[in-house]
Amino acid sequence: MTRTPKQDRSRVTRRRLLEATIDSLAQAGWNATTVGVVAERAGVSRGATQHHFPTREDLITAALEYMFDERTDVARREAETIPPGPGRTKIVVERLVEYYTGPMFKAALQVWTAASADPELRDRIVPLEEKFGRRAHQMAVENLGVDDTDPAVHRLVQATLDLARGLGLADVLTDDARRRSEVVRAWADVLDAALTQQ
Amino acid sequence: MTRTPKQDRSRVTRRRLLEATIDSLAQAGWNATTVGVVAERAGVSRGATQHHFPTREDLITAALEYMFDERTDVARREAETIPPGPGRTKIVVERLVEYYTGPMFKAALQVWTAASADPELRDRIVPLEEKFGRRAHQMAVENLGVDDTDPAVHRLVQATLDLARGLGLADVLTDDARRRSEVVRAWADVLDAALTQQ
Repeated sequence: MTRTPKQDRSRVTRRRLLEATIDSLAQAGWNATTVGVVAERAGVSRGATQHHFPTREDLITAALEYMFDERTDVARREAETIPPGPGRTKIVVERLVEYYTGPMFKAALQVWTAASADPELRDRIVPLEEKFGRRAHQMAVENLGVDDTDPAVHRLVQATLDLARGLGLADVLTDDARRRSEVVRAWADVLDAALTQQ
Repeated sequence: MTRTPKQDRSRVTRRRLLEATIDSLAQAGWNATTVGVVAERAGVSRGATQHHFPTREDLITAALEYMFDERTDVARREAETIPPGPGRTKIVVERLVEYYTGPMFKAALQVWTAASADPELRDRIVPLEEKFGRRAHQMAVENLGVDDTDPAVHRLVQATLDLARGLGLADVLTDDARRRSEVVRAWADVLDAALTQQ
């Protein structure tokens, strides 16, 4: 029988809580995502949960950071598999948009919307959102293989991230996958042509 | 002294309630926007409020419809003042994006986000959102003066609306006006060139 060191068990518990938080936010929404609900979902005692995350805000901000870091790592590895050449822009935009239609975006949307009417939560979320924005931009630049010091390129990359955010929001109430794939294709064509001209 | 006919008073009361609902959603958020809070904000008795809107959902969906109709009327009148010529696309995109950063979008965001975790509310909101989406698309087409039967044009107009939605969301926690104006300009240039090519 192998024994799990205490530190590893603690890390596993922490991860289960963070993943349960994202799932609960994405599926059940802001109001339903209490520390108690998350603890139950994760199968972790209330006491252990509060040891890791003293407040609901601690739990929720940690969950967003954790998921963002995880997704960024996956994206970085996936990006290495995208072949260079004329189809690359479309694949990069497609993958980018996928992030904004997944559980992490749906969870973050719940938090942003709540934060817009809660100044204390907003103060915690704004720096996090800025960090996410900077890193998403940086990754898009790397994956597109473009020169971001060119102001026109910089703005087109920003526009692509804004489009992705808008497509994410359009997917919240209904499955928008079919329409979205057409929009992404049209955008990628225009973006590719514009980036080539710079 | 002039007397206001009963029907007019009723219409004024109704309008005050609907405007107070939008303001409350945009500023105080979903949870804080109860029938009681809206009635107080509007200076209307609780009884009169419930006479007009039996449930909170009735009040909120009516408020979204009312504001959308109002804004559409204003937009239609404003559109007549946009001069034709090379700068038109930029002005149309700018005005479009303005809608998605105003109180109506911020109010709608609160409702969509709540609806994503509430199947009953979702059933009421989805048809409304579809109607809004169709009319926003139609107006963008008219104002851009393009042929929407061309599939490529249709998708570029959709992408512009998706971008506007994403820019709206980026403005919820912080004032994003400066960055947004750069993104809008960059996209308008690309869009204008792409539409001209079609």
